[in-house]
Amino acid sequence: MTTLDILQAVAAGQLTPTAASAQLEASQTADLGFANVDLSRQQRNGVPEVVYGAGKTATQIVGIIQAMPKQTTPILTTRLSAEKFAALQPALPQAVYHAAARCMTVGTLPTPATDDYIAVVTAGTSDQPVAEEAAITAQAFGNHVERVYDVGVAGIHRLFAKLDVIRGAKVVIVIAGMEGALASVVGGLIDKPLIAVPTSVGYGTNFQGMTALLTMLNSCASGITVVNIDNGFGAAYSASMINQL
Amino acid sequence: MTTLDILQAVAAGQLTPTAASAQLEASQTADLGFANVDLSRQQRNGVPEVVYGAGKTATQIVGIIQAMPKQTTPILTTRLSAEKFAALQPALPQAVYHAAARCMTVGTLPTPATDDYIAVVTAGTSDQPVAEEAAITAQAFGNHVERVYDVGVAGIHRLFAKLDVIRGAKVVIVIAGMEGALASVVGGLIDKPLIAVPTSVGYGTNFQGMTALLTMLNSCASGITVVNIDNGFGAAYSASMINQL
Amino acid sequence: MTTLDILQAVAAGQLTPTAASAQLEASQTADLGFANVDLSRQQRNGVPEVVYGAGKTATQIVGIIQAMPKQTTPILTTRLSAEKFAALQPALPQAVYHAAARCMTVGTLPTPATDDYIAVVTAGTSDQPVAEEAAITAQAFGNHVERVYDVGVAGIHRLFAKLDVIRGAKVVIVIAGMEGALASVVGGLIDKPLIAVPTSVGYGTNFQGMTALLTMLNSCASGITVVNIDNGFGAAYSASMINQL
Amino acid sequence: MTTLDILQAVAAGQLTPTAASAQLEASQTADLGFANVDLSRQQRNGVPEVVYGAGKTATQIVGIIQAMPKQTTPILTTRLSAEKFAALQPALPQAVYHAAARCMTVGTLPTPATDDYIAVVTAGTSDQPVAEEAAITAQAFGNHVERVYDVGVAGIHRLFAKLDVIRGAKVVIVIAGMEGALASVVGGLIDKPLIAVPTSVGYGTNFQGMTALLTMLNSCASGITVVNIDNGFGAAYSASMINQL
Amino acid sequence: MTTLDILQAVAAGQLTPTAASAQLEASQTADLGFANVDLSRQQRNGVPEVVYGAGKTATQIVGIIQAMPKQTTPILTTRLSAEKFAALQPALPQAVYHAAARCMTVGTLPTPATDDYIAVVTAGTSDQPVAEEAAITAQAFGNHVERVYDVGVAGIHRLFAKLDVIRGAKVVIVIAGMEGALASVVGGLIDKPLIAVPTSVGYGTNFQGMTALLTMLNSCASGITVVNIDNGFGAAYSASMINQL
Amino acid sequence: MTTLDILQAVAAGQLTPTAASAQLEASQTADLGFANVDLSRQQRNGVPEVVYGAGKTATQIVGIIQAMPKQTTPILTTRLSAEKFAALQPALPQAVYHAAARCMTVGTLPTPATDDYIAVVTAGTSDQPVAEEAAITAQAFGNHVERVYDVGVAGIHRLFAKLDVIRGAKVVIVIAGMEGALASVVGGLIDKPLIAVPTSVGYGTNFQGMTALLTMLNSCASGITVVNIDNGFGAAYSASMINQL
Amino acid sequence: MTTLDILQAVAAGQLTPTAASAQLEASQTADLGFANVDLSRQQRNGVPEVVYGAGKTATQIVGIIQAMPKQTTPILTTRLSAEKFAALQPALPQAVYHAAARCMTVGTLPTPATDDYIAVVTAGTSDQPVAEEAAITAQAFGNHVERVYDVGVAGIHRLFAKLDVIRGAKVVIVIAGMEGALASVVGGLIDKPLIAVPTSVGYGTNFQGMTALLTMLNSCASGITVVNIDNGFGAAYSASMINQL
Amino acid sequence: MTTLDILQAVAAGQLTPTAASAQLEASQTADLGFANVDLSRQQRNGVPEVVYGAGKTATQIVGIIQAMPKQTTPILTTRLSAEKFAALQPALPQAVYHAAARCMTVGTLPTPATDDYIAVVTAGTSDQPVAEEAAITAQAFGNHVERVYDVGVAGIHRLFAKLDVIRGAKVVIVIAGMEGALASVVGGLIDKPLIAVPTSVGYGTNFQGMTALLTMLNSCASGITVVNIDNGFGAAYSASMINQL
Repeated sequence: MTTLDILQAVAAGQLTPTAASAQLEASQTADLGFANVDLSRQQRNGVPEVVYGAGKTATQIVGIIQAMPKQTTPILTTRLSAEKFAALQPALPQAVYHAAARCMTVGTLPTPATDDYIAVVTAGTSDQPVAEEAAITAQAFGNHVERVYDVGVAGIHRLFAKLDVIRGAKVVIVIAGMEGALASVVGGLIDKPLIAVPTSVGYGTNFQGMTALLTMLNSCASGITVVNIDNGFGAAYSASMINQL
Repeated sequence: MTTLDILQAVAAGQLTPTAASAQLEASQTADLGFANVDLSRQQRNGVPEVVYGAGKTATQIVGIIQAMPKQTTPILTTRLSAEKFAALQPALPQAVYHAAARCMTVGTLPTPATDDYIAVVTAGTSDQPVAEEAAITAQAFGNHVERVYDVGVAGIHRLFAKLDVIRGAKVVIVIAGMEGALASVVGGLIDKPLIAVPTSVGYGTNFQGMTALLTMLNSCASGITVVNIDNGFGAAYSASMINQL
Repeated sequence: MTTLDILQAVAAGQLTPTAASAQLEASQTADLGFANVDLSRQQRNGVPEVVYGAGKTATQIVGIIQAMPKQTTPILTTRLSAEKFAALQPALPQAVYHAAARCMTVGTLPTPATDDYIAVVTAGTSDQPVAEEAAITAQAFGNHVERVYDVGVAGIHRLFAKLDVIRGAKVVIVIAGMEGALASVVGGLIDKPLIAVPTSVGYGTNFQGMTALLTMLNSCASGITVVNIDNGFGAAYSASMINQL
Repeated sequence: MTTLDILQAVAAGQLTPTAASAQLEASQTADLGFANVDLSRQQRNGVPEVVYGAGKTATQIVGIIQAMPKQTTPILTTRLSAEKFAALQPALPQAVYHAAARCMTVGTLPTPATDDYIAVVTAGTSDQPVAEEAAITAQAFGNHVERVYDVGVAGIHRLFAKLDVIRGAKVVIVIAGMEGALASVVGGLIDKPLIAVPTSVGYGTNFQGMTALLTMLNSCASGITVVNIDNGFGAAYSASMINQL
Repeated sequence: MTTLDILQAVAAGQLTPTAASAQLEASQTADLGFANVDLSRQQRNGVPEVVYGAGKTATQIVGIIQAMPKQTTPILTTRLSAEKFAALQPALPQAVYHAAARCMTVGTLPTPATDDYIAVVTAGTSDQPVAEEAAITAQAFGNHVERVYDVGVAGIHRLFAKLDVIRGAKVVIVIAGMEGALASVVGGLIDKPLIAVPTSVGYGTNFQGMTALLTMLNSCASGITVVNIDNGFGAAYSASMINQL
Repeated sequence: MTTLDILQAVAAGQLTPTAASAQLEASQTADLGFANVDLSRQQRNGVPEVVYGAGKTATQIVGIIQAMPKQTTPILTTRLSAEKFAALQPALPQAVYHAAARCMTVGTLPTPATDDYIAVVTAGTSDQPVAEEAAITAQAFGNHVERVYDVGVAGIHRLFAKLDVIRGAKVVIVIAGMEGALASVVGGLIDKPLIAVPTSVGYGTNFQGMTALLTMLNSCASGITVVNIDNGFGAAYSASMINQL
Repeated sequence: MTTLDILQAVAAGQLTPTAASAQLEASQTADLGFANVDLSRQQRNGVPEVVYGAGKTATQIVGIIQAMPKQTTPILTTRLSAEKFAALQPALPQAVYHAAARCMTVGTLPTPATDDYIAVVTAGTSDQPVAEEAAITAQAFGNHVERVYDVGVAGIHRLFAKLDVIRGAKVVIVIAGMEGALASVVGGLIDKPLIAVPTSVGYGTNFQGMTALLTMLNSCASGITVVNIDNGFGAAYSASMINQL
Repeated sequence: MTTLDILQAVAAGQLTPTAASAQLEASQTADLGFANVDLSRQQRNGVPEVVYGAGKTATQIVGIIQAMPKQTTPILTTRLSAEKFAALQPALPQAVYHAAARCMTVGTLPTPATDDYIAVVTAGTSDQPVAEEAAITAQAFGNHVERVYDVGVAGIHRLFAKLDVIRGAKVVIVIAGMEGALASVVGGLIDKPLIAVPTSVGYGTNFQGMTALLTMLNSCASGITVVNIDNGFGAAYSASMINQL
């Protein structure tokens, strides 16, 4: 029963305002004590709730996943360490762990409906965990993904060699640490939306990714929007919305 | 003659590599001494070069605009003060000044090809200049725009009253200063891409927009990407790319 | 013997200034070498001294608690790890450990004198330790507390479902990490004092709670005051003063 | 007609949900184009909307004030320069300007209902504008105010000489720039809620008030909550809520 | 008489240690009261003292220039406004003002001894003042300079069209504001030392050049060293040392 | 009548506690409304109150000076612009303005009691205003001062030429902007206390003196203590205390 | 043989400049490969070199101590962990470890020559390690020390009870973490030099001592100079210089 | 086959543009999945790719080294822990580990072609790891290196004793932590390019090397360029380019 249904029942005199309020609460959240699971997210946001694994115990994660409503796409858990996965696997035998991405999916990865794809581009080898988090998220949401890894500007011919794949995407995610210049260079060469993800790869004045973030926010190339440091999930979430328009 | 044409002429032996290099330069840039105008941007990025008016003289702006190739959309100049516009108007009598947006267009604003629209949403009255920069940019690129102004979370019923307009957009730009919480609230209520623009409205620990920027980068709602402080142009540029997919 | 008593004894010629000074010192502090326990705090501040457990050894904590004067409310120790509690429990067999709050109380929790209550509201599951520190502190000081957990703005209907409980409080504590937007939204919906507590929950540009702090200091909603990051104790201390006015 | 009235009319079948939504909007906001005035704030927050004068033109301020509903307390405008007041005075002949506070009131200052008072305490002469903003705000909201100015810790006997006035208040506002130590000292001597306001008075590493803010957030004395730098209005708003409990 | 001469005179018994000390002072500094001109800099550093014009009066600048010893290269003054130049020109009729560089030279620019050259490369039009400061400094020190302006990465073909000039230099200065990515891209394409100069061109999170500085310090390309923001002079000083090895 | 006198009168029964409290207040402060002048500072701190001229009107400064008790040293006002001095001179005809120091003295500069002196050492010409503030302050407090200006480490022989004067001081003040390295070098060469004053001279990453401050706080040489940026007065205040031990 | 002796030998023709240079090096440093021990420090600075134990191995510390010249005061090593002391004790059987101070002395602590003393004052129990480092350093340099611990402003009567001891010192060291307000309060009550040491005690916006540092640099009380965070050694070094004037 | 060869083959009609593009990719990168090794770096930059060991597994490092083309200089791996070296040694038996530098070389260190040398100068013992990284890098690239260690300004005679070695270099690397003043002092005494490396040695307000970095960027001495904190490799890379000009 959606919010609109409830409000129409009120209008029809079938429900008092007080009862409607209680019902709204009951139908849209599952209160587990330690969490208040949002049951109407897919209806509201088009995507079901995703479990952020960091800072939750294995038991809590299992509890939340079991409280979630049926959904057409797999249930995704991000920022999940291998240790925590090992601990919760007995309770969720159907779960699949994506080690490079530190993610878990429960349910089959869907087949993309179209050939439109998201390109996930990285500057260096160390950016791979963030890139895989983005790629698995996008796949879990039903997107086709093309990975273009380790094409940073120190050897710019590596980027040009892969430019066709990048230019063919409907939306491009560029992931880079250190100085993050790759986002500007790619941004100047394509005509599609570009979501830039700074990573915490670097040392000294890199300030755990702050330098790459600032680079991306101040890019001289247009058409670049930015997410938080290491937030591969968030970039893929937005990219999926765009790719499925 | 595109880059590909030139390279194929090289392959056909009609052009030496050295001549090809010179031709590439000649066909794609206009060197004005003070500026090296990029003539291939529309081909590369799908959008012609936009003139950033801050830090250029009226004479320089006129020179750049006169050097630009014919284009189907109006030539847009951003961050242009009323004083500078008055100085360059005699040389560009067909130019139109959009005072609230601090922008100038040369050429007729195009009629949008579809009903798809970009919603431009602000938290408060003081965010209007940034919002208008975004709206005029989007219109100059051929988009339909819906303005939803002054619906910040201090009076959240104002937002709910306009929720249908916001939810109907293909992509939403949320513009807010102070603590920037509006982006998170809207992000939790829609199923479309959201581009957040922090503004420099505020005082004290607002740090000229840094607080709103940080809020938007750390939003608990997903699907939000962010641009630089006060960068209405950049948000509209990305939103236009998305709206026209 | 209060400070006033001592000064009046001086005026009465019963005490020399030098003797008065010594007596002031003796009656108001207990010098343990490693600590100079403040014996007049309840008289001065209305609340007895609270032991901050971080950075003190189990032995030091026992020593301070044993040096404290009789008091009507339980002796509260905050920021106490489970390990340290285990170490000092033999010396303080009557102590009770509140694990979720990382607090210890010695003495029975008092029954609140009135029905007035403090609402403790959190944005997410990870904010719980700070919330429990606030709740136990408030209860130790004799307040009635209502907990409203995990109602962050990403699923704002969860907040509206609990709005009656929040609006019924005499003072509200809002606890949030990440971007901390919940404080602004609640602040716009109530007519009671709101104390906001930023938590260090988040990553990247969250900067260990700095982003949530800045959000709360710059809220567009009025009536919000703020305490240090993760300072659940401090928020409850002020809230208790207000609730008991 | 309140929100509840509207919802009950829906339940009674006197109003369709769509009509209810429109009515909610119409009854609670006044859309001036440049502003979306919040008409239900007094009902929601207990205090009518206050006009923030900075960044609004004289014409806009007059427009907003004329659109506001009748209210029992004077309409308050803060951060209003003398120049702007001179410009709008002809349109609002009944307005009174409080120069030291940079505030304007329209309507008579109310007589406080009780003898409970708010103490406004400053460290130095330069903190006076912020203190007056706080004092006038509190008076406009119907509170009795006691001013205790220039009692900073460099000459701590000045503070002790006024301690009785401070200790007699129901809530204390401490305003200080430079290193802001006054808040900690007062906090250690009273048993009432203390709201600390850092000011931008200072130079060099004061960082426009950041040092005083950090001092107040990290106070070793308990019971202190903090507002944004120079935010005398915000402190008074919260203090008024507390004083009128 | 050099320092070595003086010390040898001491060894020869021709000078007492005390007299030597006085002589060292007399021969190597000119004390003007407001300044203590360093007369041995060319001997020590290979380059005579350069006058930093900011924060000195026209009279002080004239005084210092007149106190300087004869030198083979022109006397260079940097950071000199047009107004200040106009004020001191009567006293130094032979002085030449380089407006775009905000520099003044007294004495003829020398003819470079070799064809080795320094390439001065900029990302955008607004970086020109810093670039000209670098170029005039390098020329005043006797170097051949090639200017390559406005070849930022948003239109990277502009850079490739000028790559031969850049690769032909003995040392390259790259000057960029905003995100400063040009330094990384050039650094990946050349085999000569690269000195990067961040400029204060940009807005918002550019932080007056801090972003470009951080980008350059964290470049994924090797062989890049960096100077202070807007320090065209310093870059040219080091580049000249390298070019003349 | 000192505080001790008053307390002894209480002990003698000649004064009630209440009367004593009032008398303490009356004898030790002069309440001017805009300021609460501290009359017991010389008794408490050994030095009478000094007027900080910034942010006070000419009228306020005159009022405070006229309210101050007789004192053996001149009344010192710091941070006083030439304009403000011109405005208050008619009311204080005996006042002397020290332009380079931006200070005013009322009363004759005292003759130092001993030959012990404070050396005031600067790195560059632009540090002079801070140095003069320090020198005049020290002289107003009765100290002998030796000025050693413009001996920064870029021409370190200038420092060595003046080392005897510096080593002969009882306490040394080192004043430097830019990178502030002079403090470390002097600190490694002397056996007396060194007070370092960072100045706001510099640009770019100097951050208005922050770089020099950090340098001084982290000096590899021991025996260096530091004051706020540009705080020549504070350094001289401490140096005077030390010089007069 | 001092530097002066060597230079006079040159003047006397007994030494060539080259030989003098070699001799200067030989007589003033002991090159251990891993360290270049400074043998002339006592002659230059009045205090022999002190070993900074952090980041050196036990073997390195033993080597440096054995290379140091005879001295009248004990050899002091700071920042030495108990583990490292245990490792080096066999090689230095006469060494004494001061656990609370994390310092080691080799040689008997000297008897102070006078009754003049340094007061070491702390705000809280957690500041003790820094305080003990200061106290042991001062004692090792031959000073009498009075410890006044745990008298922070939250219970200001504790400070007043010890004021006589503090006021009797020739120089006062105030050590505080959290907001560091104790320095300002003590500074307003004494007439002797005060050296303030911020400590890294605190959490959240304390920023590892940055807040206390800023407080101390911006104190409204005069006569306060500051050292680096947790730098008890540095404060004692300066205080010793002052105490022994 | 170089890029030029390929392009000439295109011009000669021996290669289609598409085939040329594929060949460019194949000849210039080796795609290992986890890395995209840059095979044309020596041709482009004059120096073959160097392996950055941090954040790569032993297996990945071995894989990359085995994929690299033959080169005349040894293959250098930096930031390699002793543990990781032990793990990969069996697979690379010819590898040599330089423990103090945390570097590995595969292949014989070349004999320098000339007597020109790079001086590597440090302020203190703790700067040695960064210095050794610089020295081994320079040697691996075929340079003669002179080490001058532990000559910081606290004992400046140590520096003067080694000045001849420093002045004799063709390029000087100065490495310093804490306040980094050594760079300025050396810069004022030489006439060769100076590359400054800040190190993370220090505590408190050193901010992990930020203070030394700022010092070096703001040096009052000219001719200093700077690299990232602890970046000994980068300094040596640039110095090698300069030394081999």
